[in-house]
Amino acid sequence: MEDKLFRERYDAYREAVEAYLDKLFTGDVPWQELYKSMRYSLLSGGKRIRPVLTLECARLGGIRDWKYALPFACALELVHTYSLIHDDLPCMDDDALRRGKPTNHVVFGETMATLAGDALQAEAYRLIAEAPKLSKTAKLDAVWSLAWASGANGMVAGQVLDLTDFGHDRETLTTLCDRKTCFMIKAAAELGCAAANASGELTAALARYASLLGLAFQIRDDLLDVIGDEATFGKPIGSDRDEGKTTFVDLLGADGCASEVERLTDEAVAALDGIPDTAFLIELARRLTTRTK
Amino acid sequence: MEDKLFRERYDAYREAVEAYLDKLFTGDVPWQELYKSMRYSLLSGGKRIRPVLTLECARLGGIRDWKYALPFACALELVHTYSLIHDDLPCMDDDALRRGKPTNHVVFGETMATLAGDALQAEAYRLIAEAPKLSKTAKLDAVWSLAWASGANGMVAGQVLDLTDFGHDRETLTTLCDRKTCFMIKAAAELGCAAANASGELTAALARYASLLGLAFQIRDDLLDVIGDEATFGKPIGSDRDEGKTTFVDLLGADGCASEVERLTDEAVAALDGIPDTAFLIELARRLTTRTK
Repeated sequence: MEDKLFRERYDAYREAVEAYLDKLFTGDVPWQELYKSMRYSLLSGGKRIRPVLTLECARLGGIRDWKYALPFACALELVHTYSLIHDDLPCMDDDALRRGKPTNHVVFGETMATLAGDALQAEAYRLIAEAPKLSKTAKLDAVWSLAWASGANGMVAGQVLDLTDFGHDRETLTTLCDRKTCFMIKAAAELGCAAANASGELTAALARYASLLGLAFQIRDDLLDVIGDEATFGKPIGSDRDEGKTTFVDLLGADGCASEVERLTDEAVAALDGIPDTAFLIELARRLTTRTK
Repeated sequence: MEDKLFRERYDAYREAVEAYLDKLFTGDVPWQELYKSMRYSLLSGGKRIRPVLTLECARLGGIRDWKYALPFACALELVHTYSLIHDDLPCMDDDALRRGKPTNHVVFGETMATLAGDALQAEAYRLIAEAPKLSKTAKLDAVWSLAWASGANGMVAGQVLDLTDFGHDRETLTTLCDRKTCFMIKAAAELGCAAANASGELTAALARYASLLGLAFQIRDDLLDVIGDEATFGKPIGSDRDEGKTTFVDLLGADGCASEVERLTDEAVAALDGIPDTAFLIELARRLTTRTK
């Protein structure tokens, strides 16, 4: 896909997401500080890969207007944001920086950061339930996909494994990454498909693309933690290694990681075979897996 | 209502809830410790008032079998349980005891307690989405009610107010309690009504009953914190006062609280006027507001 066209569509999605998020949690309430804390992390930039994926999958699924899928896309971003806030807490990864900015608890304190995460998770489901223009079936599919991907067998399980000395070989590390990262990226595709009432076949193909992309993304992330540039990457280089975590770089080496990322990206793109109009997703995969930040 | 009949129905509901909860998070997974931590708090007893209320409201709403509403009742209990785990954390109320047992983070550590709470919240929505026997409308109403009651304008807002020197007069303390306690008790009634596809009129009446009951319950709780017996009450007496929080006892005095509880209970019962077969709810209100633990 031509660079200009890709950028235009990506920016249109991202801007719509930012505008939607910016309208949330703005009222004049006595618990203002909670709103501030939620908005601080929600509006701190980021690539918005997950909601972009949701919107593009909704478009491919034939939704009348991709903007109809914004509540689903943003619900997912709320859950993703809550997970980042909680992951950074002193009792978790204890990170002071995220995307080059002080983490939520550094600015608002541990108490408020914990509560902001809790509230973001609940509000995600409210966004889905309130989505205008989308069918009840679509909404329930979205609730289920999101809850499954982020719950006790999904993202939280992944975080538990990440914090409990699990994942020292390729199989277990993949189990960990699937849960910690890939399930949510897969859910992003599923939510888009749900919004469009896409066929089971299309949903399965896009979910497969997203899963593989998620793993490639994570391996690339591990690689950047070793070879990246701190200012560009937005977090301290070598932080995974400092924490004594096994990463894909430990298991496969830097070159091994690079070729694994390439292989997974090819596989992700192959999952799109036979689906029309996938140039954007192909380009997205290529870019994400060669990114430097 | 005759004591024996009340007890029988209450126990039937509670046992069904316990049995349902006991089947959750039991598989043999590498993140076993997360399951253990979730189950520890989920199955630590408690009165199960909220799910009992959901089941009774479903019955009053004319559901074919109240057991059909168990996933909704238990979803609410999952969210309630997550809130207790997080409320007890060192960065929140820093409580070491809950219902006479060590709190979750004392047993499993802060990290796991935070994650157990996070997972419980997600799983609540999965239970709702997966509920067999219930309509899509019912499920979406339940998702909305639960998310609203527990989110950034509900339970979490209440917790923020509770922790941030808010609520020094009757109006603000009521705002705080509404959000921290009453919204969730109201949601318990709403989820039961949703499960039964009850009319808007019946739902509004039962929600009003539950809201008033919630406030009476909270004032009774404040009172027990002052006049209660530690072994019976299950947490240290005077802990609210030690934390410097304003309670209803500070504002109304012990006698004032007692008569306010009575007034609210009468009002709650009056909200049931014209609804047939409410003996159980009337008895429930009387018991909860005269309880000693």
